[in-house]
Amino acid sequence: MSKLINDTFIRALLKQPVAHTPVWMMRQAGRYLPEYRKVREQAGSFMNLCTNPELACEVTLQPIDRFNFDAAILFSDILTIPDAMGLGLSFSEGEGPKFSRPITTAQDIQALAIPDPELELRYVMDAVRLIRSNLKGRVPLIGFSGSPWTLATYMVEGGSSKSFAKVKALMFEQPKLMHQLLDKLAQSVALYLNAQIAAGAQAVMLFDTWGGALSADDYQEFSLRYAQQIQASLTREVDGQVVPAILFTKGGGLWLESMANTGYDALGLDWQTDISLARQRVGAKVALQGNMDPVTLYAQPDIITQKVRTVLEKYGHGSGHVFNLGHGILPDINPEHVKAMVDAVHQFSPAYHTQ
Amino acid sequence: MSKLINDTFIRALLKQPVAHTPVWMMRQAGRYLPEYRKVREQAGSFMNLCTNPELACEVTLQPIDRFNFDAAILFSDILTIPDAMGLGLSFSEGEGPKFSRPITTAQDIQALAIPDPELELRYVMDAVRLIRSNLKGRVPLIGFSGSPWTLATYMVEGGSSKSFAKVKALMFEQPKLMHQLLDKLAQSVALYLNAQIAAGAQAVMLFDTWGGALSADDYQEFSLRYAQQIQASLTREVDGQVVPAILFTKGGGLWLESMANTGYDALGLDWQTDISLARQRVGAKVALQGNMDPVTLYAQPDIITQKVRTVLEKYGHGSGHVFNLGHGILPDINPEHVKAMVDAVHQFSPAYHTQ
Repeated sequence: MSKLINDTFIRALLKQPVAHTPVWMMRQAGRYLPEYRKVREQAGSFMNLCTNPELACEVTLQPIDRFNFDAAILFSDILTIPDAMGLGLSFSEGEGPKFSRPITTAQDIQALAIPDPELELRYVMDAVRLIRSNLKGRVPLIGFSGSPWTLATYMVEGGSSKSFAKVKALMFEQPKLMHQLLDKLAQSVALYLNAQIAAGAQAVMLFDTWGGALSADDYQEFSLRYAQQIQASLTREVDGQVVPAILFTKGGGLWLESMANTGYDALGLDWQTDISLARQRVGAKVALQGNMDPVTLYAQPDIITQKVRTVLEKYGHGSGHVFNLGHGILPDINPEHVKAMVDAVHQFSPAYHTQ
Repeated sequence: MSKLINDTFIRALLKQPVAHTPVWMMRQAGRYLPEYRKVREQAGSFMNLCTNPELACEVTLQPIDRFNFDAAILFSDILTIPDAMGLGLSFSEGEGPKFSRPITTAQDIQALAIPDPELELRYVMDAVRLIRSNLKGRVPLIGFSGSPWTLATYMVEGGSSKSFAKVKALMFEQPKLMHQLLDKLAQSVALYLNAQIAAGAQAVMLFDTWGGALSADDYQEFSLRYAQQIQASLTREVDGQVVPAILFTKGGGLWLESMANTGYDALGLDWQTDISLARQRVGAKVALQGNMDPVTLYAQPDIITQKVRTVLEKYGHGSGHVFNLGHGILPDINPEHVKAMVDAVHQFSPAYHTQ
């Protein structure tokens, strides 16, 4: 496979010197891009797009071709594992994910089989191989998965939830059963991420989208513990090159210290977390990724530039920062505003990397 | 007016010695109670219930009659001020609040008049007087308001929002105009809370429901600053009795230190915040109110009891803790489970208040 031409993203995650702060965006391959909407329409459904390696590759590369991003992220969904476990994933317009066979009994949990990534999730691995080959080493490819807790919320609730009543009832009333489910998911996620790495992913990210819905203690016991278990199983190096791992808990700003002790190379930060204070708290242990408020991208380009400069200044001098939004880009953002953000990072960050 | 028979709540907020930890619940007068649903049906609409002092009084007292709560909270809505400003508040089933005339221009903001609480919000003051009289000093009455930032989100978005795109666009692009709006709201809230105090409220609480949607810097500038401005204007004493003030920012756990410096007597904590760490961080300055995960109340009573004990143990010995949920009670909770919570607080908390 091609050697990396731009390895700034990998170097920043490992806190090695860089010439500028690398930048990418959560959901950078997505609905805000007209070229994405065209392919999405052609695919017919979101799941068709996810499960078609050629189309997944095409949309993954779209933002790389259009902007000067320093990393590509596999186009996929966080819920591919429960789908491969047989829960029947679908997406209805404006309502988010739905499982046709959610988990309701202990038997359901015991019956879950750990998917073989090269069999039941072959379409993802094929997409990773195809993207990696088509990237031709321009920028690194990020693989990813939902965290066990986040996957469990959708599997038990049957879809999105506001209060997480069902999954928390399981957690409060049958903690052992909940741990069985989470352990199975952690094993599945570790296999899945390692398969993505074997297929060509050069960094991996664990999305703990709903960890922030837990109390501090429950977060430790039911989410972070499994994130750590996964990290301990991850392939560390491929061909002498370290494969960095990033942990992102939305709403996890209170818990950065314990997150930084789990062995991940970097933590994703949401926009509520002050990145300057975060660096003081955990910057000696991990790199930090984030964290501009996604809504900033509705503002005019001059304001976006100013807000980018604020985030860069808050992180401050030296390597260990990957610029990103604090959450995924919203679907109705003007792509020109994204360009303003990427250009501002590249224009103003070199000043923070002089020796 | 009657002297307080049970002043435990007030004493705990002021960190004076108490015999047990006081307990109340956000939204304790609400849909989980069959007697509430009956009155709500009789009223026809949620707004009819809010604007009818007799019915508002009746539902305020229902949880006091049924449970052994240590405080009553005025039954009302956080959006009464913008309604009094003429924005036209209504509630549609399952969709939350809607304003028929949301704010869209600078002229709209300049045209807003600060409501006179005893005129445009007379129904609230009448409810406070009636409740206070009917309580006969059993427990203190809490008055409340939404925070300026939280009111502004609804006024600009026209209702609930997920991304706060409109109100943040105003904030990012026209910060001066946003400050004009917030200043007007802060003046209105201060007048409103002081009128509630004059009418009989014995403590007040500011609900900053959406402060947690802001970045750390924006929270300071656009939310906390106005919470502080309000605090500085609040009536401090009535008839020699201090009227404590509580500040609650949902999702504000990262910012407790700055919140504790604004002069409020107590901070409300959501369930994500570890109350033991919170006490270490700010417990010398403020009392703490919270913070059991509201979803815990779906669990069986023995588990609820155990979780109550955990929260009490986490806060630890001494006054300065008001037991509450980390957010409002959910509408489909079994009232027997609430009883289990209240009883557990009263049974197990005296051990933390021995000399």
